[in-house]
Amino acid sequence: MGEVFEIYPLSCYYFGSKEPKPDKDETLFERVQRFKANYAVKGMRTCVEGVLLVELFGQPHVLLLQVRNSFLKLPGGRLRPGEADIDGLKRKLSSKLSSVENGIGDDWQVGECLGMWWRSDFETLPFPYLSPNIQMPKECIKLFLVKLPRSRRFIIPKNLKLLAVPLCQIHNNQKTYGSIIPGIPQLLSKYTFNTVQV
Amino acid sequence: MGEVFEIYPLSCYYFGSKEPKPDKDETLFERVQRFKANYAVKGMRTCVEGVLLVELFGQPHVLLLQVRNSFLKLPGGRLRPGEADIDGLKRKLSSKLSSVENGIGDDWQVGECLGMWWRSDFETLPFPYLSPNIQMPKECIKLFLVKLPRSRRFIIPKNLKLLAVPLCQIHNNQKTYGSIIPGIPQLLSKYTFNTVQV
Repeated sequence: MGEVFEIYPLSCYYFGSKEPKPDKDETLFERVQRFKANYAVKGMRTCVEGVLLVELFGQPHVLLLQVRNSFLKLPGGRLRPGEADIDGLKRKLSSKLSSVENGIGDDWQVGECLGMWWRSDFETLPFPYLSPNIQMPKECIKLFLVKLPRSRRFIIPKNLKLLAVPLCQIHNNQKTYGSIIPGIPQLLSKYTFNTVQV
Repeated sequence: MGEVFEIYPLSCYYFGSKEPKPDKDETLFERVQRFKANYAVKGMRTCVEGVLLVELFGQPHVLLLQVRNSFLKLPGGRLRPGEADIDGLKRKLSSKLSSVENGIGDDWQVGECLGMWWRSDFETLPFPYLSPNIQMPKECIKLFLVKLPRSRRFIIPKNLKLLAVPLCQIHNNQKTYGSIIPGIPQLLSKYTFNTVQV
């Protein structure tokens, strides 16, 4: 019944905190301005994000970061110019979820690319395809499945909150989770999850 | 930019028709009754469906069958008891899309499983996960990516219509395409489509 993917109970993991990582933008307007300025210099930006799973109450849960007690996002972030997807994702996972800062020595197991989303303009929603009339997309967002080990210390910046959310809660729930996260249950549906009891 | 998947222009393919395949059920009520009766004898039913892609106007289009000028479905159908997924899908693709009836000698290239959906009861919507409180799901629906060759004769039963629909039209469009088809653009988003000009 599909490819087996092993997950571990939430209780296998330790959760601690570290110094806050200040947001680069105070407002959505500032965020868009910075996006445009960066695009003018560096071209299309690529974001890499990780799908990390744990078991809770017999169900797979995905780990999401909550920003300012409001919106939720997958752990990840923007690649540096010339940086490889996997290297960038490991660096970002360490920066958001670990006591290690630069990703070096951290043991993230980045698996397959689950999906790619494209933003055709700075303020438009991302779509899971690139329309042929879009010559110059502004952003590409790539989701990767990340395999968690049997145990791990998650160290989260104090201005972020790490939540474990069941797949059934995010499925098709665009209102709460935006454009990309609600599709994760479909992207994972080919897997059979096997909870390893420790 | 992701795994490359080759597709061919719609004009590479020939479309003809064959004798109609009468529907087993006249009404939704009859359909549910037959589903229940079969479940009592054979247990959970498994449906296998194929995602077949062509290029039209520079965009990937997915092939859908229209039943009675109304609802749209992926080509495929139910497995026989003990039948393997791939064998059953090849048999169903031949029955719905080819002059060959039994799948033998037909050259369907069935690729990876893109997703699995579960129906917890006879009349409930399918979901891309199996809730832990569901002990006895009634149906499992599996989607497979099917690679089309450079040319092929599609022969369709006269009571069905074969349509090529662009990914951008089906994305998140549950109203027209039901529960499963609207997720196909996400399931395919990890691929970069390369149109082979013939």
